[in-house]
Amino acid sequence: MNTQHKTDKSEVILTGDRATGPLHLGHYVGSLKQRVALQAHHEQTILVADMQGLTDNALHPQKVSSNILNVVADYLAVGIDPSATTICLQSQLPALAELTMYYSNLVTISRLERNPTVKSEIQNKGFERSIPAGFLTYPISQAADITGFNATLVPVGDDQLPMLEQTNEIVRKINALAGRNVLNECQPLLSKAPRLPSTDGKNKMSKSMGNTINLGASEKEITAAVKSMYTDPHHVRIEDPGKIEGNVVFTYLDAFHSDESYVQQLKQHYQRGGLGDGVTKRILEECLQEMLRPIRQKRAVYLNDKAQLIDILKAGSQVSREKTDKVLFDIKDIFGLNIF
Amino acid sequence: MNTQHKTDKSEVILTGDRATGPLHLGHYVGSLKQRVALQAHHEQTILVADMQGLTDNALHPQKVSSNILNVVADYLAVGIDPSATTICLQSQLPALAELTMYYSNLVTISRLERNPTVKSEIQNKGFERSIPAGFLTYPISQAADITGFNATLVPVGDDQLPMLEQTNEIVRKINALAGRNVLNECQPLLSKAPRLPSTDGKNKMSKSMGNTINLGASEKEITAAVKSMYTDPHHVRIEDPGKIEGNVVFTYLDAFHSDESYVQQLKQHYQRGGLGDGVTKRILEECLQEMLRPIRQKRAVYLNDKAQLIDILKAGSQVSREKTDKVLFDIKDIFGLNIF
Repeated sequence: MNTQHKTDKSEVILTGDRATGPLHLGHYVGSLKQRVALQAHHEQTILVADMQGLTDNALHPQKVSSNILNVVADYLAVGIDPSATTICLQSQLPALAELTMYYSNLVTISRLERNPTVKSEIQNKGFERSIPAGFLTYPISQAADITGFNATLVPVGDDQLPMLEQTNEIVRKINALAGRNVLNECQPLLSKAPRLPSTDGKNKMSKSMGNTINLGASEKEITAAVKSMYTDPHHVRIEDPGKIEGNVVFTYLDAFHSDESYVQQLKQHYQRGGLGDGVTKRILEECLQEMLRPIRQKRAVYLNDKAQLIDILKAGSQVSREKTDKVLFDIKDIFGLNIF
Repeated sequence: MNTQHKTDKSEVILTGDRATGPLHLGHYVGSLKQRVALQAHHEQTILVADMQGLTDNALHPQKVSSNILNVVADYLAVGIDPSATTICLQSQLPALAELTMYYSNLVTISRLERNPTVKSEIQNKGFERSIPAGFLTYPISQAADITGFNATLVPVGDDQLPMLEQTNEIVRKINALAGRNVLNECQPLLSKAPRLPSTDGKNKMSKSMGNTINLGASEKEITAAVKSMYTDPHHVRIEDPGKIEGNVVFTYLDAFHSDESYVQQLKQHYQRGGLGDGVTKRILEECLQEMLRPIRQKRAVYLNDKAQLIDILKAGSQVSREKTDKVLFDIKDIFGLNIF
């Protein structure tokens, strides 16, 4: 990939992950595969969001710091290519904090409290009135991330659409103040893949709930995770008809098995009865073992050479620092603050 | 003042002003005189708070940008010496924005809503539920300013004491996280001078209310301001006894006239009757004209050489950037984020 190609790339994409745990199959299906596909044709930046990770982990910051390089290794292991995608670290880009400060004056507290995503997260995390200021205001910080790269396209799940609305509100206010289009409004790029359920079929995947399969999961962990997977609780005898809906094994087969018609046959067999969960789970396990083996191996190689991971993150952060500093300059100009 | 003296200075002082208007006699009495006295014996930094000025002026930012150099000229005109006091510009210190982000995770929204100073300012400004996020959270930004210099002493009016409480709460949380004293708790330095009333005797001084006397006021403006000053509304005939309490002319004579016993005699004369407001106002006017003439002249000379003002601000910001970056490094270390 040479520089000429870079300048021809059509969309400026910003995406990223909170560095609060290793990435798992949910990330793989929901975003990582898409990023690998996008990197050849677009100017893509992935932000490792360590500062945002601290918004609800400030009292146990090692949950963030210990996962930064894991996340970078996850990226490389699934095929994100640092010569095609810029990988950078949020805390290395002071412009993002500065932009957050300027934007904070353009967003009211009541607007933040109405954000449906933040609302439900506040409920889930049990914050009630003890919401850290940094948590309530993180949509402003996300707007800083997105506009700091002047991104035009942001891959999101539909639960994140309110974040892009907030970002575009800020963009319009800034452009109105400037009297010209300094910032781009961004468009969402919704993932076509349905959200992958947790292995217990209950919740969003979460490391702390032990209902995920990490990209770096060992062979044994994969075996155990598939074994304990939620199927159809009323499918007690093999000869009974079984339900496909909500049956996590089939959802995972849909997501990961390469042979769609074979999965279709399995489903029909299961529904009419005579196909046991032991068999479907063995088929899924084989498929996941095969898929995750090379990822796990690559990941281990990368994590064995932390200096290389740091170099990649450092180089990407340097490039990103130049980009975000340029946007900050433009924003400070609107406020008349570039006096020297 | 040589470097040797600098290192011997006992307290690290941080002080500053929002750059939202030229400074006036209220600032002179309340803080500027004190700063001039403190600069010889302490490591004093004055922060021109342009970013904080924007927290309630984002939609008319020229109110801030157009006043930055005015404020610096005010400082120099009253005798603040840039070789003894570091004068810096808040927006030039990215570490302050970054510190604000980290501290935001340690302060809850309800804690901010309980801040009595912010509460009353929200009421005064008529924000109600439309409080900009940057305004509600500005005590966190102030904590970043103070701790960014690791200040030990902060000159404040008593209305600002809740800001220092908030700062010290953050300091204690950071030190607890670090397991050692990374940041200093700061002490307030309360001004001994009573708060100077506005010329109409009603409100806090405010440029927009036209009830101030700016340090750069012209001779005519001083004359007009003293003429319109609030005295004793019941003191109609010269021979009647007049009231001193709430009589702005006497409050100003107390604050600015060099001959205390002469002011004492005037007060007694006024209280027993026979001394007209015309006379007391003429005495005050002479005193203010004499005091403000050299300040106005110096101020004009400084404002005629904006390049010099910018150089002073730039040099002070450079020194301050090094100091605040160092503190930021220590804070990021606590969160485990100095990975390269």
